[in-house]
Amino acid sequence: MKFKGTSIISLRDFDRESIMHILDSTRKIDEDRTAYADRLAGKVLATLFYEASTRTRLSFESAMLRLGGKVMGFADPKGTSAQKGESLADSIRIVESYSDVIVLRHSIEGAARMAAEISKAPIINGGDGANQHPSQTFLDLYTILKAHKRLERLKVGFMGDLKYGRTVHSLAYALSMFKTRMFFISPPLLPMPADHLEELGEMGVEFSEHRNLDEVKRDLDILYVTRIQRERFGDDLDYERVKEGYFISEKSLEGCKPNMKILHPLPRVDELSTDVDSSKHALYFEQAASGIPVRMALLCLVMGAMK
Amino acid sequence: MKFKGTSIISLRDFDRESIMHILDSTRKIDEDRTAYADRLAGKVLATLFYEASTRTRLSFESAMLRLGGKVMGFADPKGTSAQKGESLADSIRIVESYSDVIVLRHSIEGAARMAAEISKAPIINGGDGANQHPSQTFLDLYTILKAHKRLERLKVGFMGDLKYGRTVHSLAYALSMFKTRMFFISPPLLPMPADHLEELGEMGVEFSEHRNLDEVKRDLDILYVTRIQRERFGDDLDYERVKEGYFISEKSLEGCKPNMKILHPLPRVDELSTDVDSSKHALYFEQAASGIPVRMALLCLVMGAMK
Amino acid sequence: MKFKGTSIISLRDFDRESIMHILDSTRKIDEDRTAYADRLAGKVLATLFYEASTRTRLSFESAMLRLGGKVMGFADPKGTSAQKGESLADSIRIVESYSDVIVLRHSIEGAARMAAEISKAPIINGGDGANQHPSQTFLDLYTILKAHKRLERLKVGFMGDLKYGRTVHSLAYALSMFKTRMFFISPPLLPMPADHLEELGEMGVEFSEHRNLDEVKRDLDILYVTRIQRERFGDDLDYERVKEGYFISEKSLEGCKPNMKILHPLPRVDELSTDVDSSKHALYFEQAASGIPVRMALLCLVMGAMK
Repeated sequence: MKFKGTSIISLRDFDRESIMHILDSTRKIDEDRTAYADRLAGKVLATLFYEASTRTRLSFESAMLRLGGKVMGFADPKGTSAQKGESLADSIRIVESYSDVIVLRHSIEGAARMAAEISKAPIINGGDGANQHPSQTFLDLYTILKAHKRLERLKVGFMGDLKYGRTVHSLAYALSMFKTRMFFISPPLLPMPADHLEELGEMGVEFSEHRNLDEVKRDLDILYVTRIQRERFGDDLDYERVKEGYFISEKSLEGCKPNMKILHPLPRVDELSTDVDSSKHALYFEQAASGIPVRMALLCLVMGAMK
Repeated sequence: MKFKGTSIISLRDFDRESIMHILDSTRKIDEDRTAYADRLAGKVLATLFYEASTRTRLSFESAMLRLGGKVMGFADPKGTSAQKGESLADSIRIVESYSDVIVLRHSIEGAARMAAEISKAPIINGGDGANQHPSQTFLDLYTILKAHKRLERLKVGFMGDLKYGRTVHSLAYALSMFKTRMFFISPPLLPMPADHLEELGEMGVEFSEHRNLDEVKRDLDILYVTRIQRERFGDDLDYERVKEGYFISEKSLEGCKPNMKILHPLPRVDELSTDVDSSKHALYFEQAASGIPVRMALLCLVMGAMK
Repeated sequence: MKFKGTSIISLRDFDRESIMHILDSTRKIDEDRTAYADRLAGKVLATLFYEASTRTRLSFESAMLRLGGKVMGFADPKGTSAQKGESLADSIRIVESYSDVIVLRHSIEGAARMAAEISKAPIINGGDGANQHPSQTFLDLYTILKAHKRLERLKVGFMGDLKYGRTVHSLAYALSMFKTRMFFISPPLLPMPADHLEELGEMGVEFSEHRNLDEVKRDLDILYVTRIQRERFGDDLDYERVKEGYFISEKSLEGCKPNMKILHPLPRVDELSTDVDSSKHALYFEQAASGIPVRMALLCLVMGAMK
């Protein structure tokens, strides 16, 4: 796969080889960041956030600054031409003449794909609605690879809201290329969607569904936890009842393998106790920190600044 | 005209010679941008947008970054000292001690002029209410010059809302120095204001007024289209009726000279069909892109970084 | 006191010697800014403003840019993870992995202290509620030192809202280390709080309380004026009556020493007439400008880029 000038829109555009190339590029940067300190000198990144997302925006901006590049953009759509009725296509055509690479976050599915078809500057999808957020998946993969020194044949549990969790769907899809054994742990109301399970089955993935962590915790190499949002429940009482069963504390991790690692896309609210932070299982802050080298690699690759 | 340390407030401060100097400086930068990549290294631009305008802000920021300079500022007045009752004069006195050059956008006519009288750092007017937005006019002129290799003796049509269109008033004023033949095409409700027409007459400009494009399209070298805003009409039906007659499509351009070029300050909404985008007449995205070299030239000139 | 890696949270963490070290570092930078133009090259400052404060944010950003560093962050909490229920502790843990130094502004007292306990990157408190805003006090001190060539044994009047004025409390505390004679001039409703007066007494400070400037103006070397906010009064009439007595004009300064200087943390509204701006007493715009070298010094010191 040629990266120079290519937009990064969806995990589904990447095969195993191109994923490994991104992770390998990330590792190179991670091992010697100073060697890349001027790699994108003179280049301008535009961060167009039609939907606010401070973390994603700041980590892309930090990545660009760490590469010696410059950044401009907007953090929310207020005051943009979109509010005067301008089409996204027109906005992209203009901004591409101001900048060398664009990170786009938009509430509408497919917005990033459409932008990439118009723009001469490469687009990196920073999230399009409930659809895709590929750099998150790359950093999830990189964190797992760094922790276990391999991606193949791991046993990975996904826990929490598996129905609406875009990060879970995307990571499961990616890991399906690496012979992963998957365990889906969710309340009955929020299971992994049937079409996703069907697809995993077709790809030869071995998986099982569960209602609680205890059933599987002895087996796991990775536990990927996501937030269960109150809004998903009609009734607060239902939410409280469910939440309790999907609450991770140091105690609930007793019996896990010593090198089992917990990931979480963050922010967390109640589902993951702060007493886990100091345990040997906690890897979620390192995971967030991996956003920098992963996004540095993506920027370098699409700008042709790295083989 | 001496540019170093001079504020850029209104087209009316510029004569033909100083306009040509700006356009010539723009051309030099446009032909060899990399030669200017460090021209404003170490300098700080403050972008003070008391009225949101993402496009103007981003193009000034991009211009400053392309010159090796740095940028800080705010994109809307929320949270500024203005909300605590501070006068603009006080705000300018403080920001000038933080920065080397200031781009100011404000809703009040005359705000930029007042700021320039106070500030030791040069001010560039990024739009003051319905009044002036000089860098827009310079980029309009540069786009025309680049397309036709001259500014003199062109036939220029202005179409749409000519009553409230600040870009039209300013561009017509500027072109009056270049022996332009002007055609004003507007609905009866939105004509070119009488005082503007009178002034053009006094300057010896030949012009005529029209109700539709067909009357004049065979003659035009440039057609400058502006948006007709629904808010201008009391009645939605009136708006719809008028809009239809001022809608430009590829079909409505049949019979124009092959090298007739369409400009539009953007954003466009309904008045200019996307089927024109791929025609030989479309020049509006190049026009928007010209914002970068024009603003690079303005920044260099007022900072004394260019003769 | 070791500065490298140390957070700047409260004036109360600094003794006379460490204050003088900061002011001396500021002087060095102020005398030769260009010598520091690349001092923080490659470093990234994160400005996290959970409460909007354009002036503080822009002056820290300008300081960082003047040192060759880079800046990213947010200007208000809208769209941050805090709104999704994330704790400040989690947000800090993530941002510290994106940046080298953090300026934090937060509405809750103690937020900066808590952040400093978590963060490996040094935190500079840009204001935590009504509590501390140390860089403001350092720039007040630096302005006084620059004007009078000493901090010791000056006669300093504080006037306006002394009850809620955090800048007053902090500056009075700092000046208590320098044998300052203090005069507190306020309406009966807004006096210097009793516990602050008690503490000053214990530190051996000589002070007195007054109802109007005339009683003391012949003695003063510095008059520190603060805004009296309408919100403090139940009744608009009360406010108007009080305001009148605490209004500084050129006329009300007759009889002051020729080299008496007026400071004001700004923004001002009605309490300080613009006719004072051109008088020999006005020092408040120089004071605001001192924010840059002071904040450059703080950034250099905590980053270990200055002895």
